[in-house]
Amino acid sequence: MTINSLTAATREQVDSFLKQALAQLTLNPRLNQAMQHGVLMGGKRIRPYLLVTVADICGANKNDALQAAAAVELIHAYSLIHDDLPAMDDDDLRRGQPTCHIAYDEATAILAGDALQTLAFEVLTENRMEQLPSERQLQLVQVLAKASGARGMCAGQAIDLQATAKIVTEDALEQMHLSKTGALITAAATMGVLCGNDNAQQWREKFEQFAHYLGLAFQVQDDILDVTGNTEALGKPQGSDTASEKSTYVRLLGIEGAQQRLQNLHHKALQSLSDIPYNTDRLEQFSDLLLKRDH
Amino acid sequence: MTINSLTAATREQVDSFLKQALAQLTLNPRLNQAMQHGVLMGGKRIRPYLLVTVADICGANKNDALQAAAAVELIHAYSLIHDDLPAMDDDDLRRGQPTCHIAYDEATAILAGDALQTLAFEVLTENRMEQLPSERQLQLVQVLAKASGARGMCAGQAIDLQATAKIVTEDALEQMHLSKTGALITAAATMGVLCGNDNAQQWREKFEQFAHYLGLAFQVQDDILDVTGNTEALGKPQGSDTASEKSTYVRLLGIEGAQQRLQNLHHKALQSLSDIPYNTDRLEQFSDLLLKRDH
Repeated sequence: MTINSLTAATREQVDSFLKQALAQLTLNPRLNQAMQHGVLMGGKRIRPYLLVTVADICGANKNDALQAAAAVELIHAYSLIHDDLPAMDDDDLRRGQPTCHIAYDEATAILAGDALQTLAFEVLTENRMEQLPSERQLQLVQVLAKASGARGMCAGQAIDLQATAKIVTEDALEQMHLSKTGALITAAATMGVLCGNDNAQQWREKFEQFAHYLGLAFQVQDDILDVTGNTEALGKPQGSDTASEKSTYVRLLGIEGAQQRLQNLHHKALQSLSDIPYNTDRLEQFSDLLLKRDH
Repeated sequence: MTINSLTAATREQVDSFLKQALAQLTLNPRLNQAMQHGVLMGGKRIRPYLLVTVADICGANKNDALQAAAAVELIHAYSLIHDDLPAMDDDDLRRGQPTCHIAYDEATAILAGDALQTLAFEVLTENRMEQLPSERQLQLVQVLAKASGARGMCAGQAIDLQATAKIVTEDALEQMHLSKTGALITAAATMGVLCGNDNAQQWREKFEQFAHYLGLAFQVQDDILDVTGNTEALGKPQGSDTASEKSTYVRLLGIEGAQQRLQNLHHKALQSLSDIPYNTDRLEQFSDLLLKRDH
């Protein structure tokens, strides 16, 4: 079992939902194609898998959870398109394929990212979420917005850009990752709980804690793979973080130090699960496979 | 009385709300400053004024309306930052001041736009909207999302970019404006109604019709002013649309033809108001001043 085979079924369901949502946006075909390129070019769908699994554990309706999962993935997809732009990380390749501004053009890539962000919020307002009261749907919008904007992901990317070619402390690096990627991963867990039944709401904080540590561990593993992985499996040039002088855990702690940190975070993630009185085996398996992946 | 003096009080209230909302986003100071630059550099606040006035006519709570108005203005502000980027319209100057990517840098401008869009949706979920049931708040999110994304504003900007240096038909030009600027102006009216009492909901379509014609007329006037106005009053180089070979009403219809079209649209806007059994004098005055402005 690999992380890709674990998430395969959820990936298929979320992708099918995303295809449907995108198929309705016919006003400008080129924009639509660029959006599809950004969303449907693959990826492990970690955030949707986390959301759907937490939701299922919390007794959620399957369709509600898929809809929320699609929204989170749309935010993630938009952020990748914008992060790859020449003015940002200037990446030509992602998952072995040309990035959006290479396959289309820069203006279209900016607009595709913009429109994908909008679509994320639109998706959360759809009537198909009939099992959820409006207050909960509104909370989904709020949690996703707080994680994505200047309190979360966007601020993280800004901090990351400003930190390039600077030596930062481990605390500063952690703070950057917590906002850049951690906030959205944690939001996926929160949204999973919000899709669940009333009883499950009391465990929200524990699920969030799990996601918090998992997100950080995921990032440490990413930094390790950038050094130890190979270009083909990663879908991006190996060592690209080192080449661009980004701050990484490996640079700060060395390979062994980073591996130690990874184990430590993984352990804390599993500990958070142990406080929850539901069967969380699937989340345990998920974090094991995610943190032992080789690309 | 000018359009600027008419909207002054609303502008102040919305700006004060926006300042408060932005003051909370302290995670990355540079990103925060760029966001403030984009939002608080002035502007007529046409969309907030329209929303607040429609809301007031429809018996809305003042704070609910201001909050919704702030959300619409945040979307507008983000779109201006992104439209000004080098890859898009490449404008250095807006309202007589350096655009966001000139005052900061391109990456920060992209992120500031992204985070302002997110903030728009966050603002609509705040608890301060205590007079509105959650269903209505969710409808506000939905209307704003549909108007801003690949069904509306983003598609309009994509169409606009693709049409540069091409001769298009008047229908195609109208279609472009309806999505690029019309959708958000109409959304402002819809959201005003949604903030209102239950009774007012039946007049939603009439208010939307008014905004639809007003938005188109506003665009025709904009094209006319680009030819007849002066750089100082406009805050951007006079003739900049002609220089960039954009399709305009003046290019298609000539100055007189465009002025005729403006009168015609203005008339249709006022006609839509006449069907509404409330006192809509303020909207009449608003459209008169807006369409007779000289910058």
